[in-house]
Amino acid sequence: DFLHALQEIVPAFGASTDDLQRCRLNGMVDCGDRHKHIYQRAILLVEQVKLSKGSPLVTCLLEGPSGSGKSALAATVGIDSDFPYVKIVSAETMIGLHESTKCAQIVKVFEDAYKSPLSIIILDDIERLLEYVPIGPRFSNLISQTLLVLLKRLPPKGKKLLVFGTTSELGFLDSIGFCDTFSVTYNVPTLKTEDAKKVLAQLNVFADADIDAAAEALNDMPIKRLYMLIEMAAQGDQGGSAEAIYSGKEKINITHFFDCLQDIVR
Amino acid sequence: DFLHALQEIVPAFGASTDDLQRCRLNGMVDCGDRHKHIYQRAILLVEQVKLSKGSPLVTCLLEGPSGSGKSALAATVGIDSDFPYVKIVSAETMIGLHESTKCAQIVKVFEDAYKSPLSIIILDDIERLLEYVPIGPRFSNLISQTLLVLLKRLPPKGKKLLVFGTTSELGFLDSIGFCDTFSVTYNVPTLKTEDAKKVLAQLNVFADADIDAAAEALNDMPIKRLYMLIEMAAQGDQGGSAEAIYSGKEKINITHFFDCLQDIVR
Amino acid sequence: DFLHALQEIVPAFGASTDDLQRCRLNGMVDCGDRHKHIYQRAILLVEQVKLSKGSPLVTCLLEGPSGSGKSALAATVGIDSDFPYVKIVSAETMIGLHESTKCAQIVKVFEDAYKSPLSIIILDDIERLLEYVPIGPRFSNLISQTLLVLLKRLPPKGKKLLVFGTTSELGFLDSIGFCDTFSVTYNVPTLKTEDAKKVLAQLNVFADADIDAAAEALNDMPIKRLYMLIEMAAQGDQGGSAEAIYSGKEKINITHFFDCLQDIVR
Amino acid sequence: DFLHALQEIVPAFGASTDDLQRCRLNGMVDCGDRHKHIYQRAILLVEQVKLSKGSPLVTCLLEGPSGSGKSALAATVGIDSDFPYVKIVSAETMIGLHESTKCAQIVKVFEDAYKSPLSIIILDDIERLLEYVPIGPRFSNLISQTLLVLLKRLPPKGKKLLVFGTTSELGFLDSIGFCDTFSVTYNVPTLKTEDAKKVLAQLNVFADADIDAAAEALNDMPIKRLYMLIEMAAQGDQGGSAEAIYSGKEKINITHFFDCLQDIVR
Amino acid sequence: DFLHALQEIVPAFGASTDDLQRCRLNGMVDCGDRHKHIYQRAILLVEQVKLSKGSPLVTCLLEGPSGSGKSALAATVGIDSDFPYVKIVSAETMIGLHESTKCAQIVKVFEDAYKSPLSIIILDDIERLLEYVPIGPRFSNLISQTLLVLLKRLPPKGKKLLVFGTTSELGFLDSIGFCDTFSVTYNVPTLKTEDAKKVLAQLNVFADADIDAAAEALNDMPIKRLYMLIEMAAQGDQGGSAEAIYSGKEKINITHFFDCLQDIVR
Amino acid sequence: DFLHALQEIVPAFGASTDDLQRCRLNGMVDCGDRHKHIYQRAILLVEQVKLSKGSPLVTCLLEGPSGSGKSALAATVGIDSDFPYVKIVSAETMIGLHESTKCAQIVKVFEDAYKSPLSIIILDDIERLLEYVPIGPRFSNLISQTLLVLLKRLPPKGKKLLVFGTTSELGFLDSIGFCDTFSVTYNVPTLKTEDAKKVLAQLNVFADADIDAAAEALNDMPIKRLYMLIEMAAQGDQGGSAEAIYSGKEKINITHFFDCLQDIVR
Ligand SMILES: Nc1ncnc2c1ncn2[C@@H]1O[C@H](COP(=O)(O)OP(=O)(O)OP(=O)(O)O)[C@@H](O)[C@H]1O
Ligand SMILES: Nc1ncnc2c1ncn2[C@@H]1O[C@H](COP(=O)(O)OP(=O)(O)OP(=O)(O)O)[C@@H](O)[C@H]1O
Ligand SMILES: Nc1ncnc2c1ncn2[C@@H]1O[C@H](COP(=O)(O)OP(=O)(O)OP(=O)(O)O)[C@@H](O)[C@H]1O
Ligand SMILES: Nc1ncnc2c1ncn2[C@@H]1O[C@H](COP(=O)(O)OP(=O)(O)OP(=O)(O)O)[C@@H](O)[C@H]1O
Ligand SMILES: Nc1ncnc2c1ncn2[C@@H]1O[C@H](COP(=O)(O)OP(=O)(O)OP(=O)(O)O)[C@@H](O)[C@H]1O
Ligand SMILES: Nc1ncnc2c1ncn2[C@@H]1O[C@H](COP(=O)(O)OP(=O)(O)OP(=O)(O)O)[C@@H](O)[C@H]1O
Ligand SMILES: [Mg+2]
Ligand SMILES: [Mg+2]
Ligand SMILES: [Mg+2]
Ligand SMILES: [Mg+2]
Ligand SMILES: [Mg+2]
Ligand SMILES: [Mg+2]
Repeated sequence: DFLHALQEIVPAFGASTDDLQRCRLNGMVDCGDRHKHIYQRAILLVEQVKLSKGSPLVTCLLEGPSGSGKSALAATVGIDSDFPYVKIVSAETMIGLHESTKCAQIVKVFEDAYKSPLSIIILDDIERLLEYVPIGPRFSNLISQTLLVLLKRLPPKGKKLLVFGTTSELGFLDSIGFCDTFSVTYNVPTLKTEDAKKVLAQLNVFADADIDAAAEALNDMPIKRLYMLIEMAAQGDQGGSAEAIYSGKEKINITHFFDCLQDIVR
Repeated sequence: DFLHALQEIVPAFGASTDDLQRCRLNGMVDCGDRHKHIYQRAILLVEQVKLSKGSPLVTCLLEGPSGSGKSALAATVGIDSDFPYVKIVSAETMIGLHESTKCAQIVKVFEDAYKSPLSIIILDDIERLLEYVPIGPRFSNLISQTLLVLLKRLPPKGKKLLVFGTTSELGFLDSIGFCDTFSVTYNVPTLKTEDAKKVLAQLNVFADADIDAAAEALNDMPIKRLYMLIEMAAQGDQGGSAEAIYSGKEKINITHFFDCLQDIVR
Repeated sequence: DFLHALQEIVPAFGASTDDLQRCRLNGMVDCGDRHKHIYQRAILLVEQVKLSKGSPLVTCLLEGPSGSGKSALAATVGIDSDFPYVKIVSAETMIGLHESTKCAQIVKVFEDAYKSPLSIIILDDIERLLEYVPIGPRFSNLISQTLLVLLKRLPPKGKKLLVFGTTSELGFLDSIGFCDTFSVTYNVPTLKTEDAKKVLAQLNVFADADIDAAAEALNDMPIKRLYMLIEMAAQGDQGGSAEAIYSGKEKINITHFFDCLQDIVR
Repeated sequence: DFLHALQEIVPAFGASTDDLQRCRLNGMVDCGDRHKHIYQRAILLVEQVKLSKGSPLVTCLLEGPSGSGKSALAATVGIDSDFPYVKIVSAETMIGLHESTKCAQIVKVFEDAYKSPLSIIILDDIERLLEYVPIGPRFSNLISQTLLVLLKRLPPKGKKLLVFGTTSELGFLDSIGFCDTFSVTYNVPTLKTEDAKKVLAQLNVFADADIDAAAEALNDMPIKRLYMLIEMAAQGDQGGSAEAIYSGKEKINITHFFDCLQDIVR
Repeated sequence: DFLHALQEIVPAFGASTDDLQRCRLNGMVDCGDRHKHIYQRAILLVEQVKLSKGSPLVTCLLEGPSGSGKSALAATVGIDSDFPYVKIVSAETMIGLHESTKCAQIVKVFEDAYKSPLSIIILDDIERLLEYVPIGPRFSNLISQTLLVLLKRLPPKGKKLLVFGTTSELGFLDSIGFCDTFSVTYNVPTLKTEDAKKVLAQLNVFADADIDAAAEALNDMPIKRLYMLIEMAAQGDQGGSAEAIYSGKEKINITHFFDCLQDIVR
Repeated sequence: DFLHALQEIVPAFGASTDDLQRCRLNGMVDCGDRHKHIYQRAILLVEQVKLSKGSPLVTCLLEGPSGSGKSALAATVGIDSDFPYVKIVSAETMIGLHESTKCAQIVKVFEDAYKSPLSIIILDDIERLLEYVPIGPRFSNLISQTLLVLLKRLPPKGKKLLVFGTTSELGFLDSIGFCDTFSVTYNVPTLKTEDAKKVLAQLNVFADADIDAAAEALNDMPIKRLYMLIEMAAQGDQGGSAEAIYSGKEKINITHFFDCLQDIVR
């Protein structure tokens, strides 16, 4: 079927694939049903934009806690589509720029997209693009107005555009009227115990007997924090044990793992 | 009568018709009695401005939820009038400009209008023209002062001007004193169940037996969101079914339709 | 007596008469006793400034709801005085200017006035001159400080100046200390039922039998809104009837009048 | 004694006497005991600065309602002193200037004063110098910091300086720490009934029998408003009677006086 | 002992002694035990900085009501130390400068100090250096950040620095985190009745019998206000008596003294 | 083991060692178990970054009261690592710079680090880098956005970076979303009584019999304040005793010590 077909395509676009790949440096493991459902729906949007006549612009927001895998997911969909123009817009390449320069760069990405018959734009970490800080709150209204218009403006005749946004500040985006602007919104969650077990099993650094206890202790942790925790635990409490663990010769000491967990959640 | 007469006129003005047509890309379907009433009253205002001596300036605000069809309605009235100057002022063509430049462009449109004996200006999405954001709230006072004066300033002797404004932020406009400024205000609503049935019947993508259930589930949806939902549902849950549905060979699977509805309203 | 004498004088000043006349495009009808009283007191201030030794500067504020006839009244007094310098200061001629430019233009008007033995300056819509918006609230402190000083500064020896201000935001002006600054303040009201009957009778567009019902339904409407309402009603609900009504051949259909009233007050 | 001696001196300083005289255009009438007491104390400060060794800088604030006679009183003390440098600093001569320019002009006045052995500086209407507006509140912190330092900075060895400030916004000045800065503060009041009787008697425009009733109706009015009221009343309610009243041929009609009073206090 | 030794040294540094002396124009009288204790502790800090190895930077805040003698005390310690670099940083020499210029001047003083083996810097009236005003509150964050860093930054190897700050706005300094920054803080108080008696006795302008009553009436007055009060009272209520009093021929009239006291405390 | 090994390495990097050494001018004494634990965990992070494949970026926040030893601890870890690039970013070297210049300097440090295979960056006193002041609160959003991005941006392939931040304003950092950004956070505490005893014993300035009483009186004091207190007490209450005490000939007078303590904690 369509979903499988899509996954076998090698995308034919150049430079920006690197940017997309950097969002999933450690590859993608199975994070459970909810993540998979969102991936499938996102792929359906890709098809909708490609085939339908009435949807020249579709916009989709991925929201969820920090480190839950939103950027990795959006990048994966971008890679798995066969669209000739896929671009990620991120604050990382605009550090310290004036808000009007950022604005111009964002507009440029949309105008480049309008020249391609099929395009995907990922607005990564929208709150960061908006220079948001919760105290005040403060943010760039210049950029927010620009995005509000771009998210509603139809591409020229015959061009089609799919926009993904990611954010861990849904409440903020809602309060400035962004949520209404997206056609559809999906929540990318932390790992439930079941999901965590799956991930831990795939990583293969715990003794089988420890996986359940470890997964239960994690308590709704985002995937990013879980990776950091495992790296810490793998050093051992005197240092020096990482290599043995990653090569599979040893397993993580569960007591030290719980110590590290405490350092991380305090 | 006058209303029918008006509708048969082919408007004689150039470039900006394109802008007006872009506001109603999918054509206009019958959205029910309230939409029709507003259209008829708006056409009467067109006549009032054209024929009367004492109303050189009439201003009309169309307000209602996002996607309810305000811009499409204003554009349709603009097209259906036979006025030599009809212009839409939209934030889409002013992205990233400084507020004083936007101001100058808006003033220019009014001054062009003052040169034509009969003009219509559509101030589309006034909150976006004002760079409004609910947090703060923030907005451009320079532009708001400009509009407040322009909406009250009489055109030169012998010239007549009809201004339509559209907004989905009536409360905001009211709080900055805009509502008093408009001669008359109409609320453009979402689709009631009866209206939705009419629209679904015209679109012809559901099995007859499903239309009532579908319309009832929609629950006061604006027309824009309804179109997006139908496009999503038309893909089918495995993708690939859109063509068959649009060509009329298949109908939308009502279960998948309800799934999509849930994604959209969450 | 003096009041009558004044009214027969043809004022002898040039260009700005046009500006004054534009404030009362439809001429002046009798709006009832309160309007008349204010006019008479304003004319007494004209005399006071002209004849007395101790009042080189008199300032008078006309406040009241939007569209109640304040600007028309001030313009009429300006026209009916025989002062060699009468000038209206309005935001209409300063759209989009920087606040310091507006300031300079306002100061210029006062300095021109100081050169004439007898002058009237009308500060029309003071809140608009101040770029006031109720949210915040925001306004130009540069302009407000300028006006606060100009409203207190005596003209040079031998020169006399009468300043009228108009505003529909008395509360705001009060809160920034403007009200204390004016020598005297008059409230220009909406039309009471009795006043409305007088106006409707003068306009002669209703059947005699309908005037009372119409006037009662108006419920304290400002004169401006009343004029707009009558223009709307005169089109008839199918359009096309305006000419017959204005020429006196037909009368306004009272049912359609009530329909229009509802559109206007909603 | 000293007070009488002072009053007989003709001050020997040039240009700025005009500015001082403009503060009391209509001359000075007896406004009652409180006004007199403040005058006498102010004159003692003049002597203190002149004769004492330990007070090179004395600062005195005159506060009270708008129009109560503060500026006139300060100007009178300036005129009645025999100081070679007496200067009034007023917002009237700094309209529309940038706050840093105002600052520089104020500093200049103090530095000029430091060159004279004995100086008086009148900071007239301090809230206006500070560009104060109660909403916000807003004011120029640049100017307020400048004044706070200047009011504390000692003149160079051998020079002496007396500063008078006037204000009708004591609460504001207090809230920004100005009141502590002045050596002494006097309240310049409105006219009590007894004071008003004295003033009315001196003006000689009422029939003797009407003075008491008129004075009682005034109810704590500042002298400025009283003068305006009398000018209005002197026109008569049909105009034309002012000349006869000022020449003493007629008296003010007490009924018309009460009418005018109502217009003024509403 | 050390304290006495210090007091006999004639300091060997140039121009800025004048600035220090200006802080105590009338010399120093004995203000009671609390003032003396603070002086002694400050002198110990001088010794600590000079002799110890581990304290290259010591910072001491003198806080207390306006006019209580903080600046005079800090200046006296500066004079009584034998440090080669003693500098007072005051808003008086930076009137009207832009905050970045002020900043640069303050940094310059610290960098000059870093060149001297032993230095004292007096930051006089820190709230004024910070352009503080309680409404808002407003202040220069540029200057406050600069001071926060300078008050923590160690001088270069081998250099030693003692910083005194004075302020009458302890609450404000505390709220912006300044208080934690000072090594030690002393409160410089108003004069208690016992202290006031001592001061009055030293001034020798009252009849012996009046001193107690006078001192009791003063009620916790700062020394500055007490000096002003005595100067006022010395004029006598008709003027002209100051010379006789200062020369010791007459004493201050105690009734007039109480009158003046009332003027000052109202 | 690894921890000991690390401590014996002489770090091989140039200029910035001076900056690191200045953070611990008086050497490092044993401050108790909690300090030691944090040091060990920090050293484990050094190892993790060096050896692991999946952690190219690790970030660690040291928070705690002012003067508790955070900067000294971070500097010590920097010195004890054998990383070729170790850099401290401090407000001390950026006094008075514009926020965009500070931004550029911070970015430069990160980009230099990206060129080294193994780097440590210490963001010292983050609240000061952000120009934070609690009133308002105010801070530089430009710098905070820059840090938020830099703390999340991965170094280029093959490069590894460990970032330490220090702050005494955890609540503030939390409220602007910084805490989530750090991989792990440790609280550096004041000295408990047991810790204080250890420190006092090492310093050897008290009579043995006095150490317990002294330590108990300290009541959770940060190490910095403790050092200042001891320096003050060492002068003796008449001055002159410091040399004898530091050379070990005399001990601190416990009564004078308690006096000084009171001055410091008031
Ligand atoms: N399915 C996955 N399998 C393996 N690693 C994953 C997966 N999803 C995410 N990651 C890794 O987890 C980390 C966090 O993911 P990502 O950056 O996408 O989260 P995020 O939700 O965008 O976080 P943030 O809100 O901070 O932007 C990344 O290092 C990413 O490579
Ligand atoms: N009567 C209609 N028939 C068919 N399509 C319509 C009709 N009215 C509106 N639409 C379509 O619905 C969508 C939304 O309409 P429109 O943009 O006019 O809504 P709006 O109220 O202006 O929304 P917004 O508040 O977002 O500006 C558009 O794509 C438009 O073409
Ligand atoms: N006495 C009158 N007779 C006829 N028309 C009048 C009269 N007074 C006012 N008008 C008309 O009514 C309209 C509103 O009057 P005007 O502009 O003076 O009101 P306003 O109080 O100044 O309103 P705003 O507060 O909006 O400035 C104008 O078109 C004016 O010509
Ligand atoms: N004693 C007096 N005799 C006669 N006229 C006086 C006297 N005092 C004040 N006036 C007049 O009253 C008016 C108001 O006085 P003045 O301007 O001094 O008041 P003010 O308290 O400074 O007012 P504001 O607060 O508005 O500055 C002036 O025209 C002044 O000439
Ligand atoms: N011990 C003293 N003997 C005599 N005069 C003193 C003494 N202390 C202070 N004064 C005088 O009192 C006045 C106020 O003192 P000073 O300026 O030091 O007070 P301050 O606390 O710094 O006030 P501020 O808060 O206003 O800066 C000065 O004129 C000073 O010369
Ligand atoms: N373990 C230690 N042994 C000896 N001295 C120490 C130790 N830790 C810190 N110090 C000293 O204590 C003082 C304060 O330490 P440091 O500057 O590291 O504290 P901090 O927590 O960074 O304070 P701040 O919050 O003010 O930045 C410094 O002078 C430092 O040299
Ligand atoms: Mg992300
Ligand atoms: Mg629209
Ligand atoms: Mg008007
Ligand atoms: Mg005044
Ligand atoms: Mg001081
Ligand atoms: Mg530190």
